[in-house]
Amino acid sequence: MTHADLLLTNAAVVTMNAAFDVFKSGAIAISGNRIAAVGPAEEIASEWAAKETVDCGGRTIIPGLVNAHTHAPMTLLRGLADDLRLDVWLLGYMMPVEREFVSPDFCRLGTLLACAEMIRSGVTCFADMYYFEEHVARATAEAGMRAVCSQTVLKFTTPDADSYEDSLAAARDFILGWKDHPLIRPSVAPHAPYTCTPEILKACAELAAETGAVLHIHISETATEVENWRKQYGMPVVPWVKRQNLFEANVLAAHCVHVDEGEIRQLYNAGAGVAHNPTSNLKLGSGVAPVVKMLEVGLNVGIGTDGPASNNDLDMFEETRLTAILAKGVSGDPTAIPARSALSMATILGARALRVGDITGSLEVGKRADLAIVDLDPIHSSPKFERDPNAVYSQIVYTAKAADVTDVMVEGRWLMRGRELKTLAPDDLQLAARDYARRIDAFLIEREQSALNKLIAIGGVGQEESFEVQVKSRIADPEKVRAALTGPELSTVRHVHYREFDTYFFFDEPERSRLRYREDEFIGEKGEVTNVRARLTHIGPAKEGEYGGSVLLSRSRFIAPAGHSLRFYREYFKPASERAIEKDRLRWLVVYQNTEFFVNLDQLIRPPQDGYFIEIKSRTWSKRDADAKATLIVELLTLLGAEPGGGVKDEYVDWA
Amino acid sequence: MTHADLLLTNAAVVTMNAAFDVFKSGAIAISGNRIAAVGPAEEIASEWAAKETVDCGGRTIIPGLVNAHTHAPMTLLRGLADDLRLDVWLLGYMMPVEREFVSPDFCRLGTLLACAEMIRSGVTCFADMYYFEEHVARATAEAGMRAVCSQTVLKFTTPDADSYEDSLAAARDFILGWKDHPLIRPSVAPHAPYTCTPEILKACAELAAETGAVLHIHISETATEVENWRKQYGMPVVPWVKRQNLFEANVLAAHCVHVDEGEIRQLYNAGAGVAHNPTSNLKLGSGVAPVVKMLEVGLNVGIGTDGPASNNDLDMFEETRLTAILAKGVSGDPTAIPARSALSMATILGARALRVGDITGSLEVGKRADLAIVDLDPIHSSPKFERDPNAVYSQIVYTAKAADVTDVMVEGRWLMRGRELKTLAPDDLQLAARDYARRIDAFLIEREQSALNKLIAIGGVGQEESFEVQVKSRIADPEKVRAALTGPELSTVRHVHYREFDTYFFFDEPERSRLRYREDEFIGEKGEVTNVRARLTHIGPAKEGEYGGSVLLSRSRFIAPAGHSLRFYREYFKPASERAIEKDRLRWLVVYQNTEFFVNLDQLIRPPQDGYFIEIKSRTWSKRDADAKATLIVELLTLLGAEPGGGVKDEYVDWA
Repeated sequence: MTHADLLLTNAAVVTMNAAFDVFKSGAIAISGNRIAAVGPAEEIASEWAAKETVDCGGRTIIPGLVNAHTHAPMTLLRGLADDLRLDVWLLGYMMPVEREFVSPDFCRLGTLLACAEMIRSGVTCFADMYYFEEHVARATAEAGMRAVCSQTVLKFTTPDADSYEDSLAAARDFILGWKDHPLIRPSVAPHAPYTCTPEILKACAELAAETGAVLHIHISETATEVENWRKQYGMPVVPWVKRQNLFEANVLAAHCVHVDEGEIRQLYNAGAGVAHNPTSNLKLGSGVAPVVKMLEVGLNVGIGTDGPASNNDLDMFEETRLTAILAKGVSGDPTAIPARSALSMATILGARALRVGDITGSLEVGKRADLAIVDLDPIHSSPKFERDPNAVYSQIVYTAKAADVTDVMVEGRWLMRGRELKTLAPDDLQLAARDYARRIDAFLIEREQSALNKLIAIGGVGQEESFEVQVKSRIADPEKVRAALTGPELSTVRHVHYREFDTYFFFDEPERSRLRYREDEFIGEKGEVTNVRARLTHIGPAKEGEYGGSVLLSRSRFIAPAGHSLRFYREYFKPASERAIEKDRLRWLVVYQNTEFFVNLDQLIRPPQDGYFIEIKSRTWSKRDADAKATLIVELLTLLGAEPGGGVKDEYVDWA
Repeated sequence: MTHADLLLTNAAVVTMNAAFDVFKSGAIAISGNRIAAVGPAEEIASEWAAKETVDCGGRTIIPGLVNAHTHAPMTLLRGLADDLRLDVWLLGYMMPVEREFVSPDFCRLGTLLACAEMIRSGVTCFADMYYFEEHVARATAEAGMRAVCSQTVLKFTTPDADSYEDSLAAARDFILGWKDHPLIRPSVAPHAPYTCTPEILKACAELAAETGAVLHIHISETATEVENWRKQYGMPVVPWVKRQNLFEANVLAAHCVHVDEGEIRQLYNAGAGVAHNPTSNLKLGSGVAPVVKMLEVGLNVGIGTDGPASNNDLDMFEETRLTAILAKGVSGDPTAIPARSALSMATILGARALRVGDITGSLEVGKRADLAIVDLDPIHSSPKFERDPNAVYSQIVYTAKAADVTDVMVEGRWLMRGRELKTLAPDDLQLAARDYARRIDAFLIEREQSALNKLIAIGGVGQEESFEVQVKSRIADPEKVRAALTGPELSTVRHVHYREFDTYFFFDEPERSRLRYREDEFIGEKGEVTNVRARLTHIGPAKEGEYGGSVLLSRSRFIAPAGHSLRFYREYFKPASERAIEKDRLRWLVVYQNTEFFVNLDQLIRPPQDGYFIEIKSRTWSKRDADAKATLIVELLTLLGAEPGGGVKDEYVDWA
């Protein structure tokens, strides 16, 4: 007899090993945090003696489910805003609420709540992507679950960082600090190609490659993303991220809804894992990922719930079932993704996609004891047929529900016994969550009237670079500027002549944001109007920094095409006051010291001002880049014959 | 104070009335089987006194869900055969098992089990379509549920009828016998256009119109059905069934996956109700019904689970959620079918589709007290936001699960209290169901080797008419026959000359079925072979009847194109013995007394036989039609100069 700590017996054991062994009357021996033996109950009983034996009452033991992509703390935003257009949902609700509420405490509570829900539904391991990821990791470890925890990096400012450089530094610290944890695999998550810059992607790939961490990213979630990529880069997203060296890292690519066969092969050749999120992709109107093709090619495709803000729960049973039936429905082939394949995706393939396939995802000797016990005998699963060896997979995938999970173990430790959570106090978590919900409700009710939200509700809104470097100066002789622009230190990329009619709307809001309605008349060589363009820009309050005469601004700017009349917008936004500015503007896009700047030569017409103004501007997503430009821009101003520091700083609308 | 029998208080009440009233702190007064009052709890408390008051503990009361299309007894076939091609699933598993096992007892037990599952998941009313429907009705009434029970009529023989005439008669008796039942609405179900004849559809429509019963039918479930219809009739299914007078009845059309906009308008104009079955349509690879368009046009579209053999459960929460997210995913519009619309479909629209919208489907004064109480506070629904008035619908549709239903009432009677069933004993039902499952497993294991199942596994199999009338006679002079065929009583539609090479496979099966591999060489005017065709026909044992020299056979015949060689089929089917028949055949399709008959003039080549044989045949789905033809066929034989009764009856292979 060999000795083990624990014997689970009188169970059907669905191993999900390479041979798909199922022991209808089976048992598992566990020593410490590992599986010591799996097999027929009689065989195990005759070979193993254990300190404790648990009779599973004929229930079914499956490997713990792997939720291959989620944003656990967003559990606190579950059902916050549903059935909305993607831009309204994201820009109007998710991002403002995240900016206001996401904190270490929020992430801790949201993660504990998510873990409670996931444990109850048989999940033992998940891949997370959020902010303050160290706090997500800490809460996950406290709950006793296994996770790949990915610190998000974005080109925007985020709830946990004022610049992406800060996020990257935080990700590095997190990865190095947590790399040897038994439950947590720290990781970096450049959020998506369209929310990052090539520099961010490269830096993240480098960090991940250097540390061996997983690089977790959203890829080709919507058709729009791919269309934009094809337009801008002449290629879809996967080959483009390859050029940013992404595949030097162990990539976990979430969504991949709109990838073609070439991209699927490229992902396979790169050894990437994929997380399929069918509910989220349906609910947000993104579409259905080509998972049948991915599996055919041999990709490790796991299944994820995505965050509960777009699902609205963390139920892997629903997700696995949907994976199986959706593949059939869209292909017209009822044999596509049979139940056994779907369960593979939810277990071993997901584990491999997360790069933890060597320690979890199947019930095999030597692997960690990560498992769930499921009751396959409730009324909604009755009767059960036995003839077909695949029937047990069909019962798990097509009829079993999250509520049928009775016990869950991770690393040999019980996290749930007889439907009772052992590591978490759900009542306390729910109470604290209710408090957040109340505060978020109150915040949104107040914000519901905000100009930005109203702008977003109109649609078509995009966010602009968060850092703006600018310098402005009154000048006497515009001809000197024109002459200087032809000098050898500069090259002109583009030159335009506009007449700009701006109307600024001001609001009685605590944030002091403003909305600009701008009509640009493009002026031709003979002074004729060649084109007209109208745009709305929402300008948030700015954090200001001064650099020897130049000004560095960090602020949110949202821009949208203006298809309606000024009168429409006045009635729609109901500003507390407004002010008009009209100017003649000559604009050059120049390159100075390998850096692009806009040079504006302005003449104010309304309200009238004597003389000319020169304004030099540049925008960027990078704080470091902004710092560098803040120095260059003053040199450039001097070069163009104006006096730095002797000018004016504010926007025309604030003083003219 | 007004008096009521029961007051449900301290509940959120989601009425689903026309104004979509929600009483966050609400109450309902119930008198007898009806709702006496609905409103804010304080208002109800001040106006109503009741014998009994139930504190709902802050839970949410919703109208009982309406399962708009199912086959309740098929609960006993849940998970019997999954992930298979439709023809293999239907012809290889469902139909043979139904032929063998479906009985009044099967229907009663399956319905009780289905009711137990449906009550537990908040369903109070459903539309059923099956055999022995009176037994379904009886079991449903015993469980206390409301249902539209539809007796199936098919052109094939069914478990409860040897001919469709018998089914129709049974449907009439059932409707007349049950028409005044408080819970049951008896109804007739011509199964589908492709499994019925125009005569059956017309007769069913007439019966339904005459009795006011609902006509329940499958319409345009698969693309193949619609393609076949366009090919055969030059129009899709809906306009064709209209020509069969279908819309003279109150139609409940299940599936409608492949209907175009014109058909949707036609359904609307006909006042038809539609049952959307998203899980079944995905799982069987049928596609996704255009429900957004249907709702736009104003159709009453309910949601159904379909039978548990293709779902594999009766969970209306899953179905409603899938309806909401699937519409978004396939349209790319995340605002499609918001949660409130989805819940409307699962309640009031479903009730209207079933023609019970006047008495159930919403919580309104005067309607029957059909309701479910749902706990919206488990961990997987936490936290809840209150700001958005639609949040409660989002909580019910996107996060609530069947297991969150705690109490269910139909007609003022509790069917479940505190998750405990009041009218059914689930343990007994499960025990009896297990017994059926064991017997069905054993039956299929034995059948797994049957020739018919192996034929079906190859694919492309279709079923032929079940009644065959035939007469055969040896004749001396073939020229007499040829001459008679040009006579005035007959007209020839078509004439062909074949050389037929048949190989019959015989099996050691108790059923004595046989498989024929036939190669037809089509012979041209100059004796040349113009075409070759190979087919497999599985011929079941026949029930025989004699009509003065002619023979009426009733048997199953399945036909499939034979794409492989005889050697392949010999090795694949492994027959116990085989026999070859070769003949020269002249065939005429003639019309005699407005009836089509095939006339064969045969010369046996292998084994050689002297002289000629005349054979006259006709096939039909109708027993009455077969009886009529049995008389005509003998007249025709005489007309062609042969001796009735003086000939041979059996197939050549049985004696030659």
